[in-house]
Amino acid sequence: MLKQSYAWSLALAGLSLAGSPLALADEGQWQPHQLPQLKAELKRIGIAIPAEKLADLSRHPMTAIVSLGGCSASFVSPSGLAVTNHHCAYGAVQRNSTAEKNYISDGFLAKTRAEELPAGPDSRMYITDKVENVTARVMQGITPAMSGKQRHEHVEDRIKALITECEQDKAYRCSVPSFHRGLEYYRIRQMMIRDVRLVYAPSDKIGNFGGEVDNFEWPRHTGDFSFLRAYVGKDGRPADPSPDNVPYQSRDFLVVSAQGLKNGDAILLAGYPGTTSRYKLPAEIRFARDVSYPARVADYQSDLSVIAAATSGNASAEVRYASVVKSINNRLKKTEGLLAGFARKDIAAIRDAQDAQFRQWYAQNRSDTSLLKELDAVIASDMALTEEEFAWSVATNSDLLKSARTLYRLALESSKPDTERKAGFQQRDVSFITARLNRLEQSFLPNVDQARYTASLQRYNQTDARLRPRGLDLLLPTPESVVALYRQSELGNTAKRLAWLNKDASAFLQSDDPFIQLAVKLHDTGMSLEDRRKEVDGNLERVIPQYMQAVIDWKKSQGKPVYPDANSTLRVTYGTVAPYSPRDGISKGPFTTVEGIAEKHTGKAPFIAPDNLLTAIREKRYGVFKDAALGTVPVDFLSTADTTGGNSGSAVLNKNGELAGLNFDSTYESITKDWYFDSAITRAIHVDIRYMLWVMKEVDHADNLLKEMQIRYPAK
Amino acid sequence: MLKQSYAWSLALAGLSLAGSPLALADEGQWQPHQLPQLKAELKRIGIAIPAEKLADLSRHPMTAIVSLGGCSASFVSPSGLAVTNHHCAYGAVQRNSTAEKNYISDGFLAKTRAEELPAGPDSRMYITDKVENVTARVMQGITPAMSGKQRHEHVEDRIKALITECEQDKAYRCSVPSFHRGLEYYRIRQMMIRDVRLVYAPSDKIGNFGGEVDNFEWPRHTGDFSFLRAYVGKDGRPADPSPDNVPYQSRDFLVVSAQGLKNGDAILLAGYPGTTSRYKLPAEIRFARDVSYPARVADYQSDLSVIAAATSGNASAEVRYASVVKSINNRLKKTEGLLAGFARKDIAAIRDAQDAQFRQWYAQNRSDTSLLKELDAVIASDMALTEEEFAWSVATNSDLLKSARTLYRLALESSKPDTERKAGFQQRDVSFITARLNRLEQSFLPNVDQARYTASLQRYNQTDARLRPRGLDLLLPTPESVVALYRQSELGNTAKRLAWLNKDASAFLQSDDPFIQLAVKLHDTGMSLEDRRKEVDGNLERVIPQYMQAVIDWKKSQGKPVYPDANSTLRVTYGTVAPYSPRDGISKGPFTTVEGIAEKHTGKAPFIAPDNLLTAIREKRYGVFKDAALGTVPVDFLSTADTTGGNSGSAVLNKNGELAGLNFDSTYESITKDWYFDSAITRAIHVDIRYMLWVMKEVDHADNLLKEMQIRYPAK
Repeated sequence: MLKQSYAWSLALAGLSLAGSPLALADEGQWQPHQLPQLKAELKRIGIAIPAEKLADLSRHPMTAIVSLGGCSASFVSPSGLAVTNHHCAYGAVQRNSTAEKNYISDGFLAKTRAEELPAGPDSRMYITDKVENVTARVMQGITPAMSGKQRHEHVEDRIKALITECEQDKAYRCSVPSFHRGLEYYRIRQMMIRDVRLVYAPSDKIGNFGGEVDNFEWPRHTGDFSFLRAYVGKDGRPADPSPDNVPYQSRDFLVVSAQGLKNGDAILLAGYPGTTSRYKLPAEIRFARDVSYPARVADYQSDLSVIAAATSGNASAEVRYASVVKSINNRLKKTEGLLAGFARKDIAAIRDAQDAQFRQWYAQNRSDTSLLKELDAVIASDMALTEEEFAWSVATNSDLLKSARTLYRLALESSKPDTERKAGFQQRDVSFITARLNRLEQSFLPNVDQARYTASLQRYNQTDARLRPRGLDLLLPTPESVVALYRQSELGNTAKRLAWLNKDASAFLQSDDPFIQLAVKLHDTGMSLEDRRKEVDGNLERVIPQYMQAVIDWKKSQGKPVYPDANSTLRVTYGTVAPYSPRDGISKGPFTTVEGIAEKHTGKAPFIAPDNLLTAIREKRYGVFKDAALGTVPVDFLSTADTTGGNSGSAVLNKNGELAGLNFDSTYESITKDWYFDSAITRAIHVDIRYMLWVMKEVDHADNLLKEMQIRYPAK
Repeated sequence: MLKQSYAWSLALAGLSLAGSPLALADEGQWQPHQLPQLKAELKRIGIAIPAEKLADLSRHPMTAIVSLGGCSASFVSPSGLAVTNHHCAYGAVQRNSTAEKNYISDGFLAKTRAEELPAGPDSRMYITDKVENVTARVMQGITPAMSGKQRHEHVEDRIKALITECEQDKAYRCSVPSFHRGLEYYRIRQMMIRDVRLVYAPSDKIGNFGGEVDNFEWPRHTGDFSFLRAYVGKDGRPADPSPDNVPYQSRDFLVVSAQGLKNGDAILLAGYPGTTSRYKLPAEIRFARDVSYPARVADYQSDLSVIAAATSGNASAEVRYASVVKSINNRLKKTEGLLAGFARKDIAAIRDAQDAQFRQWYAQNRSDTSLLKELDAVIASDMALTEEEFAWSVATNSDLLKSARTLYRLALESSKPDTERKAGFQQRDVSFITARLNRLEQSFLPNVDQARYTASLQRYNQTDARLRPRGLDLLLPTPESVVALYRQSELGNTAKRLAWLNKDASAFLQSDDPFIQLAVKLHDTGMSLEDRRKEVDGNLERVIPQYMQAVIDWKKSQGKPVYPDANSTLRVTYGTVAPYSPRDGISKGPFTTVEGIAEKHTGKAPFIAPDNLLTAIREKRYGVFKDAALGTVPVDFLSTADTTGGNSGSAVLNKNGELAGLNFDSTYESITKDWYFDSAITRAIHVDIRYMLWVMKEVDHADNLLKEMQIRYPAK
């Protein structure tokens, strides 16, 4: 019944792509520069905008696509107005809310620029500006004699140097991610906007309608959108937040299509997908399925129940941990979904067949096959180390311990020249570390953290002793002694925690704070794990690129391009608006409608729709946003686009490159797509632009923004 | 979103039926003689067979439609071969199964007539032969001065006389059901076949695939069909089971269409629907919703948990109670579904509006409005008595007590002339009573019955004391004393139980069997409830027909026919093959496919498909049964036909009156249809004829039956 992954399975089946009705070309998170290779495909599904234009980061529409760090967004006016998901702007709404002015439940709309609120000191907007292939520079000086650790450190050092060089201009943030697991390195320069403001967020009764219950589900009725604005100094360059700043003049921006899309329409989706694992070996899939993910699920569930028990009946404690719980729940549901997907379909077996085919091709086309043996050995060492790292993460699952470890490591690294410091602890990282240590206050309570750590240590004690880092047991507190640590530590106090930022390593050695002491005591074990990880990663970086090159050559021999796994860099995916059948006899989507909101509305969270929205539905005030086929206003829709975490807020563009919606989630059946893209059931969930505009007009009266954007309304 | 009941809502909306796109004419369980009034409708949806022909019980196709008593069936060959649901023939399969020859799990196929097995001594096949309007004869002699009880007994007596007259020929079974709650009475004469044999039943892995889990659910993949054969004496008349009997020469039979149906096709459905409540007043809906159904749900749940605890770990006890559990579960799910439907849609409020409109019309068209006041009063007394009856049913929920009460009542009634006996205890009923008392053995264990009765008495003690039959508390055993009753009673022994059939009332009075004693002790309370029920029913029978006549007049003034509530008599409904949307953003049906069986197959009951069926699917051996649109063999499908319990096994006919499937269930969202037909979500579930034929050909090789039937295969 279910069709296999296009890239792999068509290759296997020996089918030609062109003209085949099976050519479901929806898999692929393409680097923009790859798009011209897919010209025919883009044309076939109906994309009118030329592939070459999409490949050019200096031209519309890619100039309008920005990253928020973890989320995607896009400019929709010449004055720095950007649209993203409600859940991506949630922190900004939350930090501006008080008991009197609850913007979370009431929504927020700045009617003038002056009313726009600071999104927070660590809010950033990154505008990709330059992408260079720096593979040769990263690889320079690598010798075959190097150990894995030496190789990894060499690569790290080269990357740091490339970043330092690039960040001479403080307006930019640079990164050198690897593509194809180390085959290529690109240096990406992003203009980093440091003054981001909240412009408009609907009530969470719209923006988070359905909440956790509907997360990863369809039918969906979430209005997951918000508006931010980028501000810069009067010189047009990024600046620290200041009342003197002015809106960023976004060179380009997306035109908004109020016409929307219909079933079967082609779409493009541009954003910053985080991580995928599409090229993992069958052994890695089995390890995730049988070992790693089940352990994580048990760990999440246990942690959640401890938090629930420790905060139960205390409303303010529940609020304090709400975002922590939400985040663990999200990871839990995603991991459970992956396991459910693995159970539903034997992806490992499918990959076995593909892998066998690849190895056969390899044997026929390469003289030396030692690579594949080496590959298997390196993967095995990676999995073994991963188990120890998991035990370590359980053994150190305390916010205070984590803070102490970060502070101690920073003190140690700070004694070195900046270029020699560990990435993440360089001068450029201090402001992020400070923000994180500061922000902890909002999601931390000593008694809850104590309960979590006590339970974590108990869980650690139940793990297989052979899979724990050697010697760690002797260094850890007993679960019973945790209460004393929290009683004696002062790190729970934000000012005292931050005061450690400026102390040197000797101060840590002399401290009698039990968490500082524990951090010092655990340091060697942590470093040993880090060194072993470097050795493994260095070996992976040496072997995997050779493997990926072979895979690319294999695909090339079949006339097919290969996209790299997602790595939080700008990618373009394309597809069509389409329903799917999760099971025989049922069809889901592609659209939901505003009537479905009234249908779901129970008056009990998370299914409370605002009264004025329900009234507008009841009175059928659809206006120009009514879809002819549906006879009402669409809310969310499904497409075949290839997305993952980090694509939240990604612009969904119609064939002409106009904004037609925002990506915000995928269906439960799609969760496995991070490992295996099954085009029959994989669907991304988008909020329809017509619902966004309808809410802005009929519910929230955001006329100023509707006026600021360039909206193309349907012809009468 | 959801459309209202056609008959009521179109009337309310003042819409004309003809030519309106809203004319979803799928509501209505029509008496065959009403069909000519619906000529235009039948033609509009595409039924080719003339309405007059459908109305004639002496002509094809109605001659082919038979009742099994609780289920429907239809003849499919000139030699008495009848097709019905697997669950309707289940008892016959069960009674012929042994540990060695397990026809339940292996299926059964008689390759020759000689191999056909007796379906059981109480298996019957009823062929409706004559329907006469006997309203005048039933009503004769009724005077306005009569009390409710007098009126009810008078009607009962008239009906008994009409039946006696009709049953002079022992080949027939007659009944005089009321239509429109007493407005009309029809005498229905049915030829009663007493020798029924099992011809073919697929394995329950096909016939009950999905079991309880899938009951009332869609997507469905159940092959719910079996074949029986009617046998008669050599003279062609019904006869007791005998090896000398010969197959009944079915005057007419249905031609089978192997072409099947597609989405949107018109269908007819003929069978014997049991009970509906479409004309209940808003107060009655609220009583069911708020009082009666919630109490029943709690009672079913409690009873089920008691049975589960008492049979747990004892496989043979579990088997003994399997059908009891199944039946309670079915009622539970149905009642829960009704409550869920009431919660989803405020049917009471809809009926309030309709009722108000009717009362307005009534006030304008009738001079005397005392009828409506009287109606409300009689309904109120009915509801009050229903609560007492429920408490009584809880207080007497013991199989041994029920047996004792039946036996004592039979002894009392037997002392009267036959015509004066209570209906159900006349000479004509003795064989049924005997069969029931005998059959108890198959679904009874003393310790389980004891646990159930103990728990029932505990529940009774928790009911509102004001709603219990007066004086009953003092007569009942305490829950603690129940153990002694079971220890001392001999009624659990079948032979000893049956021995009471021939004893007179005085023997009961002298018995020291505790259940016989209890039955005697409770008799007066039971009779008092019965008398009060007669009084209420007599009043209902006096008032409701006047109300229904007014409703009919009201509808007639709008040019619309009115169908009577279902009452287990032959009805015809029509509709189209159609999917539905249970919620915004989801569409279900109209077809499932054989691939869905493989998808659901887990190897764990109730999702075990037979190996040879899975192989046939895997090898895509679809043959001529492949649907062009689906590309595979359909299994089950949905239609808008108006059905209810009793319609199990009903023939689904295509526009030409050919057999295209069998009705066997409805979707969960449809359960409320017994009270309110919501055409947007009400769907009946049918097994597709192509799946039946495919299983017969590819899986069970029932070539003899395929040859016996007249099958029209699609043109090549």
